[in-house]
Amino acid sequence: MTPYRLARRAEKLSVGFPAPHFPRELPAGTIAFDSGFASPRLLPDLSAVMQEALTARRDDTLQYSPTQGEPELRQWIARSMNEDGSRLAAENILITNGAKHGIELMCRLMLDTDDAVVVTAPTYFTAIPIFRNFGARFIEVGQDDHGMLVDDLAAKLGERRAAGAAAPKMIYNVADFHNPSGLTMPLSRRRRLVELAAEHGSLLIEDTPYRRVRFEGADIPTLHALDDRGIVVHVGTFSKLIAPGLRIGWIAAEASLIARLIQLKSDGGSSALLQRAIYDFCRSPAFPEHIARVRDTYRAHRDAAMASLAAEIPEAQVIAPEGGYYVWVRLPERIDGDELARRAAAAGVNIIPGSKFFAGDGGYPKNCNPARHHIRLSYSYESPDRIAEGVRRLADVYRTLAHADAVRAG
Amino acid sequence: MTPYRLARRAEKLSVGFPAPHFPRELPAGTIAFDSGFASPRLLPDLSAVMQEALTARRDDTLQYSPTQGEPELRQWIARSMNEDGSRLAAENILITNGAKHGIELMCRLMLDTDDAVVVTAPTYFTAIPIFRNFGARFIEVGQDDHGMLVDDLAAKLGERRAAGAAAPKMIYNVADFHNPSGLTMPLSRRRRLVELAAEHGSLLIEDTPYRRVRFEGADIPTLHALDDRGIVVHVGTFSKLIAPGLRIGWIAAEASLIARLIQLKSDGGSSALLQRAIYDFCRSPAFPEHIARVRDTYRAHRDAAMASLAAEIPEAQVIAPEGGYYVWVRLPERIDGDELARRAAAAGVNIIPGSKFFAGDGGYPKNCNPARHHIRLSYSYESPDRIAEGVRRLADVYRTLAHADAVRAG
Repeated sequence: MTPYRLARRAEKLSVGFPAPHFPRELPAGTIAFDSGFASPRLLPDLSAVMQEALTARRDDTLQYSPTQGEPELRQWIARSMNEDGSRLAAENILITNGAKHGIELMCRLMLDTDDAVVVTAPTYFTAIPIFRNFGARFIEVGQDDHGMLVDDLAAKLGERRAAGAAAPKMIYNVADFHNPSGLTMPLSRRRRLVELAAEHGSLLIEDTPYRRVRFEGADIPTLHALDDRGIVVHVGTFSKLIAPGLRIGWIAAEASLIARLIQLKSDGGSSALLQRAIYDFCRSPAFPEHIARVRDTYRAHRDAAMASLAAEIPEAQVIAPEGGYYVWVRLPERIDGDELARRAAAAGVNIIPGSKFFAGDGGYPKNCNPARHHIRLSYSYESPDRIAEGVRRLADVYRTLAHADAVRAG
Repeated sequence: MTPYRLARRAEKLSVGFPAPHFPRELPAGTIAFDSGFASPRLLPDLSAVMQEALTARRDDTLQYSPTQGEPELRQWIARSMNEDGSRLAAENILITNGAKHGIELMCRLMLDTDDAVVVTAPTYFTAIPIFRNFGARFIEVGQDDHGMLVDDLAAKLGERRAAGAAAPKMIYNVADFHNPSGLTMPLSRRRRLVELAAEHGSLLIEDTPYRRVRFEGADIPTLHALDDRGIVVHVGTFSKLIAPGLRIGWIAAEASLIARLIQLKSDGGSSALLQRAIYDFCRSPAFPEHIARVRDTYRAHRDAAMASLAAEIPEAQVIAPEGGYYVWVRLPERIDGDELARRAAAAGVNIIPGSKFFAGDGGYPKNCNPARHHIRLSYSYESPDRIAEGVRRLADVYRTLAHADAVRAG
């Protein structure tokens, strides 16, 4: 038999990123700080809305659905985003099979092999192989305590322009409760970023899964709300608002761009059943109560994580996230995050080492990788008691590592 | 603002294929022969399995799910295909968001711009823009009453090889109850096709949504069951077995190919909730009863369509499909199927003209397009009474067209 031939791009598929550990697959007693799983206590009761969707509305919910998505759900999303400062109609919304599917569709629409994409360093690690599988080259931009260093980005884009290089096709960012850093970008920097994207003709992809999971402080306008030129593409999801198991998200963008994305969304429409159940849940009194419970619960988780880290690993530098699921832990430079993660897993606590969140293929001097001495700790899944226990275990491992290092150094 | 730039491929996105008419959006009284919607009488009651999935199993069903799909459902699919002659394990199955998503993933894995793909003429029209959006060039192969003319394909592939051209990356076919032609390929031709694909190193994509919707006669082995060299990729779906609104399908293939596809399936896993509900429904006593009802109901629909066509449009040449949703109607050559479809829609009966099912960009002499005098009639959605009424309306329009043509010719 003549062996078959893959697409050139698929010959070098991006592999090696950590597969999520599913809580149900973990050995009993393992503490999962690695995943973005929802707290089991926050999975809502959807049986009433689903019952209604499967009986009274069965003729609609079990048939095919329009590729763009159910009109009523798109209308609800547009209104909800308009209350948050956007100016959208249902035609501006495309329903996707989760936020990652939204990012993938944007890649299909925008990227030729070797096109440049801007990401922060660190960035959301699941997005990295999606961009890479489309042949993207990364432009990494650092962050300070207020998120992406937009002035640094401006300088890089200016240099590229001066050198005659094409502008990046897309700038990818998580402005609210950044994954993994937990940082939130202030208004002035958001404005500057939208300006910069428009100046260079780079679409600005705003990935905002955690927007409504804010623990304190006032909302800052979304990048989308600050844009009046159609340069921002907003990627949303119900995974963090309702439950990850539904796999329904959306893209909000200019109608002309949505029309092209519809042509690329060759899945026969997202599930009409899930869309109806989500729409009915979002309109029910249970939804605001659920959101309030999500905020209160994850605030308590965040507090437990911060308190435990301060008590158990006082050398750790952390910025308390104002929302979201993650805290980014900076350890003394001599600590290797990969080694810490390996040993922590053996001690029954899973974390993701910082090195996984950098899109660059190196270029850092050896022993000077800025990722090396960081870890991401996700406090969403475990209860406050388990968070405390997990940080204690992590601290034990950390002290062993730090001590061994001190002995070597001494 | 600098305008943003799309991917080269996306500049020429394939548009203009007919969007499905959703029954709920049609004017009252319209008869829908155009879509592959399920009969409303066959949408099963899933409320019990969903209730169980949303309560007792909530901790699993509302969380993320493995990208490859739920192990138990993959196991069920593998066993079910093994009863149908395949030799598969759960590792050979990838859960997708419907069969079209499976085709799209195969395109992402296999196609570079300008790669050749073999399709029948006519072929499933929804697959055409998916292939085209990946830059495929089509090799069209005709059909006789037994489906794809495999000898013709062998000759074409031989000529290409002799000319030094690369073999097509994929051969796409619907061997059971072909869409749109309704034809089923006999065993000898299936064997020959699998041989030919292996000889040229072209993956053979077997799209089988209607496999279990057989009205009479014995099953013929799938292309997948006839393959012992890993050249056949089987694309399946629950849309025709249970309901289209679920949007869950699968790819069955060699484990090494599945492993690569997992890297490309960047959707965060298909819905755990839907997968669990499907798995529980498939294991319940309701499933075989449902399948029997599906067969009996669509057999009656097919019979109604055949009887009405014979009575109302005796000039129409049709081959009674042994299963599936569609009958392909060949009209006298002077009849323009596009014009017939336009006028029929105005008279309250929707059909899809044959011209939409040809992937070629022409190359047929003017007035000699083999598509011109065909239509596809889908008998799945409407009841037998409505099918009879729809064919009467269609026949009225047909006679007006045929008469006008006779007058012109006379």
